[in-house]
Formats: sequence, structure tokens, C-alpha cells
Amino acid sequence: MTEKTTAALEKLRNEIDTVDQNLLGLLRQRLDLVAKVGEVKHDAGLPIYAPQREASMLAKRRNEAEQLGVSPQLIEDILRRLMRESYQNEKNVGFKQVNTDISHVVIVGGKGQLGDLFRQMLSLSGYQVHILDANDWHLADMLFDGAGLVIVTVPISITCDLIRQKLGQLPEDCILADLTSIKSAPMEAMFETHSGPIVGFHPMFGPDVTSLAKQIVVVCHGREQEKYEWLLEQIEIWGAKLVEAQANKHDEAMQVVQALRHFSTFIYGVALFESKADINQLLQFSSPIYRLELAMVGRLFAQNAQLYSDIIFAQSGNIDQISGYFEQYREGIEMLKGNDRDSFIKKFNQVAQWLGDFSSQFQQESRIMLQSAADMKTS
Amino acid sequence: MTEKTTAALEKLRNEIDTVDQNLLGLLRQRLDLVAKVGEVKHDAGLPIYAPQREASMLAKRRNEAEQLGVSPQLIEDILRRLMRESYQNEKNVGFKQVNTDISHVVIVGGKGQLGDLFRQMLSLSGYQVHILDANDWHLADMLFDGAGLVIVTVPISITCDLIRQKLGQLPEDCILADLTSIKSAPMEAMFETHSGPIVGFHPMFGPDVTSLAKQIVVVCHGREQEKYEWLLEQIEIWGAKLVEAQANKHDEAMQVVQALRHFSTFIYGVALFESKADINQLLQFSSPIYRLELAMVGRLFAQNAQLYSDIIFAQSGNIDQISGYFEQYREGIEMLKGNDRDSFIKKFNQVAQWLGDFSSQFQQESRIMLQSAADMKTS
Repeated sequence: MTEKTTAALEKLRNEIDTVDQNLLGLLRQRLDLVAKVGEVKHDAGLPIYAPQREASMLAKRRNEAEQLGVSPQLIEDILRRLMRESYQNEKNVGFKQVNTDISHVVIVGGKGQLGDLFRQMLSLSGYQVHILDANDWHLADMLFDGAGLVIVTVPISITCDLIRQKLGQLPEDCILADLTSIKSAPMEAMFETHSGPIVGFHPMFGPDVTSLAKQIVVVCHGREQEKYEWLLEQIEIWGAKLVEAQANKHDEAMQVVQALRHFSTFIYGVALFESKADINQLLQFSSPIYRLELAMVGRLFAQNAQLYSDIIFAQSGNIDQISGYFEQYREGIEMLKGNDRDSFIKKFNQVAQWLGDFSSQFQQESRIMLQSAADMKTS
Repeated sequence: MTEKTTAALEKLRNEIDTVDQNLLGLLRQRLDLVAKVGEVKHDAGLPIYAPQREASMLAKRRNEAEQLGVSPQLIEDILRRLMRESYQNEKNVGFKQVNTDISHVVIVGGKGQLGDLFRQMLSLSGYQVHILDANDWHLADMLFDGAGLVIVTVPISITCDLIRQKLGQLPEDCILADLTSIKSAPMEAMFETHSGPIVGFHPMFGPDVTSLAKQIVVVCHGREQEKYEWLLEQIEIWGAKLVEAQANKHDEAMQVVQALRHFSTFIYGVALFESKADINQLLQFSSPIYRLELAMVGRLFAQNAQLYSDIIFAQSGNIDQISGYFEQYREGIEMLKGNDRDSFIKKFNQVAQWLGDFSSQFQQESRIMLQSAADMKTS
């Protein structure tokens, strides 16, 4: 590099440094202002996530960006990232307590990750929360006495038995809720065991989520909805999106969304292991899509074997879905062995046509995800 | 909402508007400064992607962020997104031409997406580029006459035959290169056909990539490396990372990285189709991981059936890898049918142990990707 080049680069980089410092200052200001919005919302009991306000703000910014010759997508991506930060900081402010009459909440299994998240969110909203874990059952009668809400979040494999054996003596007006990732069986157990208000939830996110903003929580209505309406409002104030579902419809979807997905990822990990694959070499040669695949495999195996066995062994319908996929795989391999490209292409086009507009929507989404994966690359 | 709340929110939102406008101004400034850096680099012939400079700049910013109480990850994510934008804009400036002696380049199959990208990049670097497509073979002799570089980028299924039948008469000192996603067979065909310099490439990215910055390009050395050294340098100037590989090692990795991956995604799409899955309902209930899965399925089927059949049917080793996975699947289903949780958990822990540190690294990566997927949600 010549001296002139070095000097020119140095000068420009100093200017970039100054811009970046101003940028940092603005980020600080914006986070502070949004925190103040959070406080006002908190006092007024408004949900932290306001989709319409967010959409109209982004539309305005995109417009302003275009006038400056800045890519609208750039400002949108940056603002979305900033909003995520603000949602996470929201926890420092706390949330409005929707129901101030309730005496206290008991979380059965509150030492698990999901139970702990709900404990945090409820505490941040001003509720008195008690944890009842496996070792605390001698305290159960005392804790349940006068409880206004009992939330069950224990491994699926023991949920129903626990409800039937341990929760028969709750106060008549206490809300009984669960956070299990299947819904029919736990709902049935709750109906049989408790005569008061009942509601089932399935929070659709992983254990590493730190804010409920924009996350989906499935809700299955049980009994006396008017008594637990405040809880739904509370969860929405945390920023989550509630999706109402019938327990059996939900469980059917989970055979695909959870069981088949996780089982296939599990088998993929096993296949890598059994073939003694060289992960370093695979990484070296990996396309962004494959890197994503490996990331998903690694993510699964970084978590708890018990949790995944629970999800996969939860419903007998899971075996049917998984076997169905397996049969398609068998037929696909026959195509391969017969070198039958025509059938492959025919089937490909059939599926593409069936997917219709979803294909291009998904392609757009995948592009954004792959780009953000590429942004992370460090060498 | 009370009038007071409305007024307070309005005031804060106006302040946020002002901050955002300043933010936009700074983004404009930063993009302009980086464009100037690009021009200086262009004149000096330096690569646009400088990993070390990038890493040290980010470290500095993270530090400064911490002093301001801003999350270091926030500023890093925003700067990475900004850098992506700058890399994409780089194309407006053009690139240094490493080899100014070369007469012209011919891209055989230059109307495909990958061929078109290379045509663009070479043109932006000052090379004279001619396209030779299926309909242009009557012009072949004229175009090949005096060509300094011929790049073959046609469907895998016809690559070798095309090389053998059509490229036997290239000028002695012309570089013959290909961009095929398998390497052994095309390299062999090139060796047999052409007696001058030979090199094989496999660009490891999808057709929707618009900048080569940070993308991986596998290079398999053929013959007379000193003659095509400039081309490697040129590709690095575009920002790509070159990974050297032996053709057979590369092809072996592709059985897993491409064939098995894409085949499994294909079968997943077929299984959804055959079971007449309700995509809207699946989306409604989907966790971020499942949304990612659907995005990858949609992405595949939004593309070309011929391309994927080419990749999947390319090597006989693909069938072995795919069959190996299938066998693991069969064993896994036996576990399920026998309700054998213990074996599941035992295998899970074996794989987790084998993956070792990769697991937590991948979990970290997957978290960032899933967060960026969640940021995008619009309702």
C-alpha cells in the first residue's frame, strides 16, 4: 500500500469513527426515549408491542430514507433491531399489573426455564409469585391456600399425573393453567381435577427467549373465561401475540411443527455421528443454508434430551406423521436409485404449484435470514 | 387512553422522530464515507472485505458502546447490517482490474444466474466479457479466438459432455475454468480436453446473492496455477473467501452439504403436499424454528426443479449418504414405536457429547438467526 493510500484511508476512517460515535449517541437517546414511552405505557397499562404503530412508524421512515437515497430496507432492519433492544429493556421498567385483587400465584415447576420466565414476568408485573418444585411438596397445602392462579409447567410426561394426583384441592375460584406443549391431555386432566376456571397455554418459543414481545402464545379456552380474562390481557401487555386454538387442532399441528421437525433434526445429528462426519470440514465447505442446518442441529443437542424425548414421545399421532415422512423418503430414494429425474422434476413442480404464493413469500424470508447469517461471519 | 397519556406519548414520539431523522442523516454520511474508502481501495487494488480491519473496528465500537451503557451486541449488529449495505453498494464503484493484459473473457452459459453474476463482476472490474449461450454456438470460434479466460457454467448434467465436445480448440494459453457444484468429473473433462491452464471453482451461495463479500468460493487447482493466480486475486478483491480443496474431498462433502440437505427439504415439501397440510394453520401455530423450516422448504420450491435434480442426481455417492440417513431414520422410528425413551436419551447424549463445543457455538448462531427472524414479524 502506498503512503498516499494509507493516509487517505486513515483520514476517511477517522471520519467514520466520528460518525459512529454520533451514531452511538443517537442510539443511546433513542433507547432512552423508548424507555420513557414504556413508562408511560406501563402507567396506562398499555401493551408494549403495538403492531400498527410500529408498521406506520416504519412506513414513514422508509419514505424518509428514500428521499435521502438510503435503502428503505436498511433503515427498517436497523429500526427492527433497535426495537428488539427496547423490548428487552422493557423488563427493567416492569409491566402494569392487570389484576391487583389476586392474592398470589403458584408456579408448579417454576425452576424450569419456562417456569422461570413466567415467574420473572409475573413478578415484574407486581404479582406475588411462589415456586413449587419437586422438593417442595410438603409446602403445597400452605402455598395453594388462597392462591388465585396456579400454573403447571413440568415435563409433559408427568403433567397429567401430577395434575390429577396433586391439584385436586385448589381453592374453588383459583385459576388452573398449564404451559404444556400438547394441550388435549393436560386440559382433560385439569377438567377432571379442578372445578374452577381452567385455561391452557402453549408458549411457542425456545428457552433462550428473553422478551415475550412478538412471540406467539397459543391459548386453549377451558372453563369460566371471564375469570381468567385478566391473565390474557396481562400476557398481551408483555408483548406476546395470543392465538386461540382448539386443543385437538393444536395438537395435530404440533405433530408436524414440533415432533416431525425435532425428530428429523435429531436423526440428522445421529447420522452425522454414525458416519463420523468431519464437522470442521463441513463448516469449511458450508453454504449459508447448510450452516443454518448445522446451527439447528447443534441447537437441539445443546439442550435437554429429556425435553426433546418428551416432545417427540408425547402423542401417538407423532409416529404417524413421522412414518408418513419416512414413506415419502422411501419413495424418493427409489426415484434416486432408478435415476428417475423426470419423476423428481414432475413432483417438484407439483409441490411448487401447490405451495403457490407461499413459495415466494418464504423465499423472501429465507433470504433475509441467510443474509443476517452471512453478516455474522467473522473470517 | 387518557388525554394526558396521549399527549405524553405524542411528545415522546415526536422526539423519537427527530432522533430517527438524525439517524438517517448519519447513515447517509457513513455510507458515503465507506463508498469513498471503496474508491481509494479500488484505485489501490485492495480487496473490499478486510476481516481484520472489520474485527478491530467492531471491537472498538463495542467498547465505546459499553461506556455509553449501550449493548455491545446492538452496535455490532447495526454495523454489520451497515457493512452489508456498503458491500452491496461497492458494485456501483467497480473493482480494480488485476489483469489488464487479458484480451477478453467468454462465459459459456452466461445467461444463467451464476453466469450473470460473474459477468457483472468481471465487467465491473474492467474486463471485456462475452456470453456464449446455447443458441450462440455458431459464434463460438469467433469468441474463443484470442480469449484469455473461458468460464463454463452450464447445468451439471451437461457440463462434462460440453467441455469434451465443444472446448477442444481453445487457445493454448487460455485459462479454462468452471463453476460446477461438483468438481472431480468436470476437472477430469477439462484436463482431457484442454492442455493449457485449468482451474475449478464452486461458489458456495444461492442465486439471490448480490455481493460476493464474505461468500465462500471453493477453488480446486488444476494446471499452471501461476497463469490463473490473477483470477484468484480478482475474486478476493470482490470480497469472497477462497477455500482451497481437493476435488474428491470437496465432492464428498457436497454429498452431505448439498445433496442430503436439499433432498431432505424436497421430501419435506412432498410430505406436506401429500398430507394436504394446511400451511396457513401451520404458520399460525409456528415457532420461530418451524417458520425457518418452512422458509427453507418454500425457498427450494421457488427455484428451479432442473437445478435441484442436477445437484441431487450429480454423484452416485449422494445415494449412499441419503440411504445412510434413511437407515438412521428407520432405526429412530423403531425406537418411537417401541416407546423406547431410554435409547432415545442415550443416543441424544452420545451425539451431544460428540458435537462437544460445536453445540454451544451453533446454539449461539441459531439464537441470532431466530432473533432476526422474530424481528421481521409484522403482526
